[in-house]
Amino acid sequence: MVRRGARQGRSKREENEKKVVQQPFFFTQNPFVPLEPLNSDQLESIHRASMIILEQTGIEVNSLRARQFYKNAGAEVDEASQIVRLPQDLVISLLETAPSEFILTPTNSERALDIGKNNIHFGMVSGAPNVSCALHGRRPGNFDDYKNLIKLGQSFNVIHFFGNQTLSPNDLPVNTRHLDTAFVNLTYSDKIFLSMSIGGTRVRDTANMLAIARGLTIEELALSPSCITNVNINSPRKFDIEMAEALITLAELGQAVVVTPFTLMGAMAPITLAGALAQQNAEAIFGICLTQIVRKGAPVVYGGFTSNVDMKSGAPAFGTPENTRANMAGGQLARRYNLPYRTSACSASNAVDTQAVWETQMALWGAVSGHGNLIYHAAGWGEGGLVASYEKLVVDCEMLQAMSSLLKSVTFTNDDLGLSAQENVLPGGHFFGSEHTMSRYRDAFYPPFLSDWTNHEAWEAAGSQRAEDRATSVWQQMLEGFQPPNLPQDRIEALEEYVSRRKEEIGTNEL
Amino acid sequence: MVRRGARQGRSKREENEKKVVQQPFFFTQNPFVPLEPLNSDQLESIHRASMIILEQTGIEVNSLRARQFYKNAGAEVDEASQIVRLPQDLVISLLETAPSEFILTPTNSERALDIGKNNIHFGMVSGAPNVSCALHGRRPGNFDDYKNLIKLGQSFNVIHFFGNQTLSPNDLPVNTRHLDTAFVNLTYSDKIFLSMSIGGTRVRDTANMLAIARGLTIEELALSPSCITNVNINSPRKFDIEMAEALITLAELGQAVVVTPFTLMGAMAPITLAGALAQQNAEAIFGICLTQIVRKGAPVVYGGFTSNVDMKSGAPAFGTPENTRANMAGGQLARRYNLPYRTSACSASNAVDTQAVWETQMALWGAVSGHGNLIYHAAGWGEGGLVASYEKLVVDCEMLQAMSSLLKSVTFTNDDLGLSAQENVLPGGHFFGSEHTMSRYRDAFYPPFLSDWTNHEAWEAAGSQRAEDRATSVWQQMLEGFQPPNLPQDRIEALEEYVSRRKEEIGTNEL
Repeated sequence: MVRRGARQGRSKREENEKKVVQQPFFFTQNPFVPLEPLNSDQLESIHRASMIILEQTGIEVNSLRARQFYKNAGAEVDEASQIVRLPQDLVISLLETAPSEFILTPTNSERALDIGKNNIHFGMVSGAPNVSCALHGRRPGNFDDYKNLIKLGQSFNVIHFFGNQTLSPNDLPVNTRHLDTAFVNLTYSDKIFLSMSIGGTRVRDTANMLAIARGLTIEELALSPSCITNVNINSPRKFDIEMAEALITLAELGQAVVVTPFTLMGAMAPITLAGALAQQNAEAIFGICLTQIVRKGAPVVYGGFTSNVDMKSGAPAFGTPENTRANMAGGQLARRYNLPYRTSACSASNAVDTQAVWETQMALWGAVSGHGNLIYHAAGWGEGGLVASYEKLVVDCEMLQAMSSLLKSVTFTNDDLGLSAQENVLPGGHFFGSEHTMSRYRDAFYPPFLSDWTNHEAWEAAGSQRAEDRATSVWQQMLEGFQPPNLPQDRIEALEEYVSRRKEEIGTNEL
Repeated sequence: MVRRGARQGRSKREENEKKVVQQPFFFTQNPFVPLEPLNSDQLESIHRASMIILEQTGIEVNSLRARQFYKNAGAEVDEASQIVRLPQDLVISLLETAPSEFILTPTNSERALDIGKNNIHFGMVSGAPNVSCALHGRRPGNFDDYKNLIKLGQSFNVIHFFGNQTLSPNDLPVNTRHLDTAFVNLTYSDKIFLSMSIGGTRVRDTANMLAIARGLTIEELALSPSCITNVNINSPRKFDIEMAEALITLAELGQAVVVTPFTLMGAMAPITLAGALAQQNAEAIFGICLTQIVRKGAPVVYGGFTSNVDMKSGAPAFGTPENTRANMAGGQLARRYNLPYRTSACSASNAVDTQAVWETQMALWGAVSGHGNLIYHAAGWGEGGLVASYEKLVVDCEMLQAMSSLLKSVTFTNDDLGLSAQENVLPGGHFFGSEHTMSRYRDAFYPPFLSDWTNHEAWEAAGSQRAEDRATSVWQQMLEGFQPPNLPQDRIEALEEYVSRRKEEIGTNEL
C-alpha cells in the first residue's frame, strides 16, 4: 500500500528540488508548420494504394466477433479465409465519425491530455523486456524496476504519459500483472498511462480501475475517457484475436484506442517508403474503422511505426533517415483523415552513447516536425525496444525539456528589442551588467539540468564525467525525492480490493 | 611538397574504401519549407529596430578607409567618435545590388558551391585553438593536426567546405601561417575553404594562391570567385580595422565575404532573442552594405551567430533552444533581404558524449530547418569552439550524411507502392524474400558507417564499444587511405614559389 509520509517526505522533496531543477509541468503546442516529405500527388497515391489493399487484398481478422462487426457494417467477409475487405465508400463514411481531437483525463484532471491539433505529448518507453542502469547493469525487467520507472516518469515534468508497461515485469504472473502495473501507475502517478492491449479482460480491468481511481462509474467514464491502449496490427495485414478484442472492448466502453501497424520496411512491409506507408495506412485505417463500427465517435488515434531494418541482420533500425521521414509522412496521412497522430522517438544503439542520441534526435525531430500528438517511446528506450535504460531516460528528459522550450511561441515587447540598452552599451562593450540584462537574466534562458558548460580544466578537475555518467545521480536524486500524488486513501483501498478480488477470480490460469 | 604516390597510394585507397563505406559526394537541397519562429509582425519589428540601430545608434568603424567608403556612399560619419550611421534609404538601395545567389569555384569545379536558394553546404570546424583525439588526448593546435584535419575533411564526402583554419596551427609563425595553411588546403583538398580574415594582406595572399591553383589571373578570378572569408563584427557595434580591411580587399577582388556578428545573448548582445537578432541584423547588414559600396554585386552572405551564455559563468552555450531558434530566425531575416544565409551547428560539451550530440543535433536542425546555405562548424567542433576533435568529426560526418539522406526528395513509382507484393505475401508473413524486396534491398536504405545495429550479446562480445570509441578507427582508416586531389605539378610548384617569396617579403614582422 502506498502511504504518503507527511513532514519527512516533504523535506526530502525540498532537498531534491534543490538538486535537480527542472521546468514545471506544461503542455506543448507546435508553433511551426509541419514538415512534409510527400507532395500532394504522392500523398494521394499512397491513399489510393491503401484503399486498394483494403478493398481488394483485404485483412485477415481472426476474431469472429470482429468479423461480425465488419460484416454488419457492410464489409465483404470471407469466413473461410477470415479475410475482410472494406469498400472505399464504407471506409470514408466510417472515418467521418472519428473525432479529430479528444480529451483523456487521468486522476489529476490538470494533467488531462488534449489529443489532436498541434498538441504534442511525450511518452515513456513502453514494453521493454530488459532494464539497464549504470549501477546494476542490464537485467530482465522486474517489478521493482517497473515501480522505479513509474516514479521517474511521474517526477519528470516533461513526461505527459506512460506507454503500455514501461518495462515488462517478468517476475510477476503473466495473467495478473496488468492489475499490479495498473495499481502502480494509479498510485505512483497521476498521469495518463496506456493499458496492456492483449484481449478484452485486461483493458476492461484497467478501465474499471481508472473509474475507481477517479470515483466514477464505468458509464461516467465513457463520457470522460481515461483509458487508452495501443493496438498493433500484426503486419502484414493480420489482425489477431487479442488485439481485436482489446480494441472492441475499449471502443464499447467509450475509451481510446491507438491503432499502430508495425511496418518495418523490408520485413513486415514492402522495402519502399511508399509501399510501407500504403500498408501502414491501410492497416491503421482498418482498425480505426472498427472503433467507429463499434461506437460512432469513439476516440481513436492514427498510429505510425514505419522504420527500416538492417538488411544484413534483419534487426530493426530507428532514427534513420527512413524512420525520420516516415514519422513526418505519417503525420501527413493522419491529417488527411483529420485524425490525431501517434508516432515515436526510438533508437537502436546498445549503449547510452552518441549513436543513441543522434538516432533519438533524428526520430524526435521527425515526430515533432511531423506534428505527432502522442510521441511514444520518447524517454528511456534503447536497443530498438529491448531495454529500458535509466540513464537514457534522464538524457531523453533533458532533450525533451529543451525541445519543449524551443516549441514555445516567441513573444516580445518593444522594450525587449533592447534599443535603449544599445544606447547605453559602448561599441565593443558588453551587456552583462546592463539594466536590460539584470532585470531579465534569471529566467532569460532555458536552464538544463544535465548539461555541463564549465570550461575544460574545471570539467577535468571534477572527474571528466560525460553527460550519461552524470545522468546516474540525477535519477538517484529523483527517486530519493519521490512523492506519490494525492490519490484519496479510500480509493487506494478500493483499488487494492479490486486487484485482490480479480486475482482470485483469474487464479493462475493463463488468460 | 606534396607528391601523389602512384600505385601504392591507389591500392591503399581501395583498401580504405572497403573499410569505411560512405555516400558519394553530392549537393544537398532542402526539400522542406523553412521553420519560422517569428511571425511577420515580429520579423518586421526586428527589421525596424535594426534600422534604428544603423540610423541612430550607429557602428564604430576603426578603419579610415572604411569610413571614407561609407561617407562617399552617403552615410553620416562622425570622425571624432568614428561612429558611422546609415540612413535607411541608403541601406535599402545598397542591399538591392547584393546577389541572392552566387557560385564559388574551388580547384575542382565539380565541387563548386552554389550559395543561395535552398542549397545546403556543410563546413568543418573553424578556428579551434586546441585539438583532441582518443589516442593522443587534448593538445594545442599544431600544423601536423591541421594537415590531418584537412585530409579528413577532403576524405569525408559530406563535407562541402572548410571554415577558416580548421584549427589554429600554433607552432607556425603568426604572420605567415596563412600561407602554409592555404598551401595545405590547396594541395590536400579540392574543396572551398575560407581565408583568414585578419587584414587585407592575408585574404589577398589567399586570393592570389587560389588564382595560381586554378591557373587564372586575379582579374579572371573576379569573374569566377574562389575566395571567401568570414568577417566578424566585434559585437556590439564595433567594426575593427583588420576585419574591415579583409572585407574591402575581397570585395575589391570580386571575392566573397560572409558577415557574421558574434551576438551572444546577455554578453555581446541584449539578453533577449528580439534584441540579439535586432543587433545581429544591424551589424550583418552594416558589413554587407560595405561590400556593395566597394563593388556593386560583390558576392556576400548574411551570417548569424546568435546564441546564449551560461548566466552563471558567462561561458557561451550552443545547441540550446535559444541557439536553435536563432538559427531558424536568422534564415527569416536573410530571406527578407534575399541574401544567402550562413549559420552553424555547434556544441559546448567537453567530451564527445551524449551532450555533444544533442547540442549539435538541435543546432543542426535549427540550421537546416532555417534554410542555412552555409552550415559552419558542422563537423568536429567541441567545447564551444575551443577544440577540434577527431572523434567528434567522425560522429558529425555520420550525422551529416544521415541528414543529407533525409533531405533527398522522395520519388517513387507505382511499382514501389508494392501492391503486387501485398498480393504475394500472406497475412502475418514477411517481405524478406519477396521479389519486390530482393530487387531493391542493396540500396533501399541509407547505410551508416558508424552505427552498430548488432544485438546486445554480439555487441558485448565485440567489446561493448560506444559509437565515439568506434570513431577512432574510422578516422585512422580515412587517413591511411588518403589520396590528395589532382592539382597539376606545375601549379603546386608555383604555389610553393609564391609561399616562399611571400615568406621572405613578410619576414618575421608581425602584420
